[in-house]
This record gives sequence, structure tokens and C-alpha cells, in this order.
Amino acid sequence: MDTTPLPAPALQVAHWLNTPTPLTLASLRGRVVVLHAFQMLCPGCVAHGLPQAQRLHQLFPPEQLAVVGLHTVFEHHAVMGGVAALRAFVHEYRLSFPIGIDQPDGLDGVPLSMQALRLRGTPSLVVLDRYGRVRLHHFGAIDDLRLGALLGQLVGEALPPADGVPVASGCDDRGCPLPSATTA
Amino acid sequence: MDTTPLPAPALQVAHWLNTPTPLTLASLRGRVVVLHAFQMLCPGCVAHGLPQAQRLHQLFPPEQLAVVGLHTVFEHHAVMGGVAALRAFVHEYRLSFPIGIDQPDGLDGVPLSMQALRLRGTPSLVVLDRYGRVRLHHFGAIDDLRLGALLGQLVGEALPPADGVPVASGCDDRGCPLPSATTA
Amino acid sequence: MDTTPLPAPALQVAHWLNTPTPLTLASLRGRVVVLHAFQMLCPGCVAHGLPQAQRLHQLFPPEQLAVVGLHTVFEHHAVMGGVAALRAFVHEYRLSFPIGIDQPDGLDGVPLSMQALRLRGTPSLVVLDRYGRVRLHHFGAIDDLRLGALLGQLVGEALPPADGVPVASGCDDRGCPLPSATTA
Amino acid sequence: MDTTPLPAPALQVAHWLNTPTPLTLASLRGRVVVLHAFQMLCPGCVAHGLPQAQRLHQLFPPEQLAVVGLHTVFEHHAVMGGVAALRAFVHEYRLSFPIGIDQPDGLDGVPLSMQALRLRGTPSLVVLDRYGRVRLHHFGAIDDLRLGALLGQLVGEALPPADGVPVASGCDDRGCPLPSATTA
Repeated sequence: MDTTPLPAPALQVAHWLNTPTPLTLASLRGRVVVLHAFQMLCPGCVAHGLPQAQRLHQLFPPEQLAVVGLHTVFEHHAVMGGVAALRAFVHEYRLSFPIGIDQPDGLDGVPLSMQALRLRGTPSLVVLDRYGRVRLHHFGAIDDLRLGALLGQLVGEALPPADGVPVASGCDDRGCPLPSATTA
Repeated sequence: MDTTPLPAPALQVAHWLNTPTPLTLASLRGRVVVLHAFQMLCPGCVAHGLPQAQRLHQLFPPEQLAVVGLHTVFEHHAVMGGVAALRAFVHEYRLSFPIGIDQPDGLDGVPLSMQALRLRGTPSLVVLDRYGRVRLHHFGAIDDLRLGALLGQLVGEALPPADGVPVASGCDDRGCPLPSATTA
Repeated sequence: MDTTPLPAPALQVAHWLNTPTPLTLASLRGRVVVLHAFQMLCPGCVAHGLPQAQRLHQLFPPEQLAVVGLHTVFEHHAVMGGVAALRAFVHEYRLSFPIGIDQPDGLDGVPLSMQALRLRGTPSLVVLDRYGRVRLHHFGAIDDLRLGALLGQLVGEALPPADGVPVASGCDDRGCPLPSATTA
Repeated sequence: MDTTPLPAPALQVAHWLNTPTPLTLASLRGRVVVLHAFQMLCPGCVAHGLPQAQRLHQLFPPEQLAVVGLHTVFEHHAVMGGVAALRAFVHEYRLSFPIGIDQPDGLDGVPLSMQALRLRGTPSLVVLDRYGRVRLHHFGAIDDLRLGALLGQLVGEALPPADGVPVASGCDDRGCPLPSATTA
């Protein structure tokens, strides 16, 4: 079985909060990335996932690690889908990391980044190394000690060379096609 | 200084959830009542107040104590004021006690029950004894042990006589005028 | 089945800490009593039971409720049985309520009060009402809200008359024979 | 100021628990080492430090990281200093990592390893990298996420060569000379 880490698909985001310009995973290459997928009415996200993401954002230097939230609304679209609701939520919970609203698929179902990332629900955590490769794909709460250990290890890994593209096919600003074989 | 407990003003509710018929404080006379005022985007309510209210609802026999939620939206009206948003929230957080949406005042400010109860914010707790008199008026989180002790004491107090109205002027189905001097 | 509350047996204590004079349950008549049985090497006692007992001691006025600790060593006697070890423990954990060392039975087994109270282990909680009758007999951790509610109720119950002895024969320093049926 | 990491002094231990043979820091070279100094009557150790140490012991593969407890009794010697008391404690709290009893100094004061490590009290954490150099020296509780990140980073660092003694000429880019006293 091939367990080579694979590149993450590009994010498809309808609107960004807490960032002056839209983010792409390609532009974060060279840093470890923690993607935290949540819904504002998901109790496990509010109680565990989002506070953990905020603490990560405060703990690591920004040049080492980027925390990116992803509001992946797949239920209660009518009451959760809007920018205004999320903005109020982000304000009240004092979240300061960039958060993207996952692009709806037009059919009120699972939004596009959530589909591409093959998330099973919320909260979900996808951790990318400095090369943009998926190194953790986790559904549900995850222990601080275990997550910290993984991130410390990834932050300590060698930086990719400025001119190199070590991952074949790769993810760039134009997109990032999912290969047929995926990571676990 | 007169510290005689005063009757609570009548609730003014736009819509009820988790109850087949609208509630009135008068109809709850004879039971201890815990009024829990909250907003769905209030972190302290979500983390502490609402779980405590739900546990109270499960701990005490319904003939002894009634837990009543009050969604007192005084900010972010556009995204929190609707029935659909609150219904989704109540579903996701598995709240099973009756919850009323406090009647907006038409000016997008402090809703009417919140004004009448003179609440300072959310979460707030107003505890009424079996006579409908205010025995606790609390803003912020309150310790389980302290709240439990008060409720145990109030539940143990003698029931009002079926035909008696021990509180002068009193609260009935038509309303409950606030006296000029209020409780602390 | 007769569920009439029964009087508690008298305590048999080898040494007292945090009190200038030895306590008896008889001398506490008129107050609600929380007996907390623990061992200093019992993780559940240290994590839950003792902090709860200390908070009870601080929450309730002393004329209403007395918290009494009982060090019921039934294992590791050689290292836990001494006064000096318990005194150091009580100092480090800043416990300020009276604590008695349960009288060893001479055979290094279950100490005498623990036997008389029929405790199943530690932590255990025995709650007596103002008449000295057992109203709760609990092994393991107990929820703050539930315990608070019981204590609030018991504190609110009518005081026994100063000259009355509502419990036949009663509990005094010489002992406390369990009656077959007590007057509730 | 020179902030070059220095090698840790050798442990001076009177008695070991949870290990068939005495440990030395030298024998752990090649692995990251977490030294957790505690006292069994130290509330912060029991509530935070020891559970964290136990979770570390379970989380990391033993060939990557070694957790070593150090019972550094500097008060209440009479009741805490013995092997039997610590053994009962370790049994009740289900601690499974190796624990050494720090060598008393004969004057009932600060024990020898604690002096050599310059610890300020308990709980204290000293983290050594694979070369045996001190990379964290912490007094008090430390956050799981922060500790995990450091350990993940250290575990990911290159192993010292099997035949080399990279510590021999100083802990900077040019080397890291061991003091004569530390050949454990």
C-alpha cells in the first residue's frame, strides 16, 4: 500500500474573514497549515475544535504555522450560510485566524472544499506539511498533546527549496486535482 | 431597606419552542421556576449557562421545578432573531426545556421581557419561588453547588394554598406590574 | 419496605485535625452534617471528593451545615495511617474543615467508623439531617448540582425543638444503637 | 549572553520504581527525555504534572521519548521520604513510567539531583534532547499544546551518530563539551 502523503486539493471559498486578501494553500507553501473545518452550530467545534485552533494560532509563530478555518455548512444552510451570521459568531468568540466560507454547491448539500477534502463531518482537522502534503486527516476532537507533537515535528522538518516542487503534479494557484488514490 | 421578594413581571414572548402551548409564569405558580436568559452567540451561555439549565431540567422532577429559557437577543438581531436559527441551535445542542423568544421592542434594542426583568446581559438567571416571587437575580455564571443549594431550599418550602394569593397585587394571566421598588 | 431514615452510628476517631476539641455527631445535632470519608492516596478523593467538601465548608454558614472529614484507611496502613502524614496532606491541600482519623480495628483492616457506617469504599459521602438521621449514603463521585439541591433542602427543613429528642434513644458518645424502626 | 543548551547533570537516585535496572541519563542518549520532578503531596503535581507525564509515556514510542519521574522530597521528609509510601502512591495513581527517589542530602533539605538540576520546586519539567542537552527547564504547570510541540520538534531532530560523541566538544555549532562530573 502506498502511504506517500498527497497534496491537498485547492480551497474553494465564497468569502473570507479575518484576512485582507483571499488565501490559497499554494501561497502558504513553506509553512505548516492547520485547516480546521467547522460549523457555528456544531457543539464539538464550539467546545473543543475552535478554541484549540485559536490557541494554535497564538502559540506558533506565523512564519512557521498557519491556522485556517473553513466554515463547511452542510446542514441548516438557511440560518448558517450567510456572511453576517458567521461574522457575528467570529466576533463573539474572538477568533482571529483567517476563516473561509466553503463554496456552496448550489444544491444545498455538502460544500465544494468539504467534498474535495473528503471530510466526514465537523469538526475536522487537515494538517499540511511545508510542502502542502496532507499529513493528518482527522474527524472529531483530537488531544492537544498529540496534535502539538505532530505540529512540532512538521515545523521542524526541512523547508522545501525555494525553486523546487517536490510533489509531482502539485497544488498551485490554478487548482489541485485529487489523485485517484487518497490518503487515509 | 425592604428586601421582601417581589413578584416577577409577566413574560412577553414572540414564539415558543419545546412546548405545545405558550407558557405564563402564572401557570407555573406552585413550582420553582428557573428563567435562563441567553443568546445563541453568547459564549458564556453556550459553555456554562445552557448546559447547566439542561441538567437542572433533567435533575428535578417537573412538578417541583420548571426550567424556562428566554432568548433575549439584544445584539446581532439580523442573524439571531429568527425562529429558524434558534430552532437549529436548540436541535444541535439538544435542549429540551421550553424556550421563548423574547418579544423584540421594534427598535432593534433590548427586547421586552429583558427590559421588564431588568437583566444586565446574558447569561442571566432569575429564580422564582413557588409563589412566583424573585429569589435570585444573577448575571453571569453561577456555581452548581450554590445554585443547587438555593433550588433545593426553594423546592422544600411550603406550597402556596390553592386558593390563596400570598403576594399582594400578584402576577396572573393578565400580567404582573413591576412595583416601583425592585429587588436587587 | 421501610425506608424511614435511620440515625447514624457514633464516630470512632483516633485523632482529630482542624478542631480544638473532638467532635461527636450528637454535638452537631441541629445542623446538617456532611461526612466525607476519604484516603489521602485515593485519586477520586483527591480530584473530586475533597475539593467538593472544602467548597461546601466555605459555601454554607457553619450554623447550618458542618462538613466533617473521616480518614478511613483500609489499605496501605503502614504509609497512610499516621497523624503526621495526614497533617502534611491537610496542610498541602489547604483543607480547613475538621477531619478525624477513623479508629483502626487492630487487625489492619477496615477501621471502626467505616465498618459502623457500612461504607463501601472511598470517597463516600454520608449526609445527616438536623436530627442526625442518614438522608444520603453515597459511594463515589456525586454531582455538585444534585448534592447542592439535597443540602439546600435539608438546611431548609424545620429545626428540631431544643428540648425534644425526636429520634428514639439517639446517638451519643457511648454509641448509637440502630433502632428497628425510627420515628421520622 | 550565551544561550547554548547545556548537558544535564547526572541523576543521583536512592531507589528506582517501575524499572528493573537503575537508569542513567547517559543510557538514554539518543532519545528525548522528559524529567518530571514531583512530590506526592504536591497538589499541582497530582492534578496536572503527573497525569501529563503518564499521557506522554503512553503517547510517544519508547524508542523516541523516555519519561522519567523524580521524587524530589524537599519538605515533609518524615512522611514522604520512604519507598513504601511512594510505591503505594504509584500503585494508586497507576503511574507506569520509571520513577527515581532523589538522593537525600543527609540534612533533610533539598535532595541532590534537585540541587544539581537547579529546580525551583515541584512540579518541574526538564526536557533533554537526543544529545542529552537541556532544551526546556520549566517550573509549574505547562500547557499540553506547547509541550507537545516542543517534544514533536525534538523527536524529529537528527539522531546523534552511533559512534560519535557529539556532546564532547560543547553545545553550539562547533561542539558541546561535557563537564567532567556528568559521565553517568
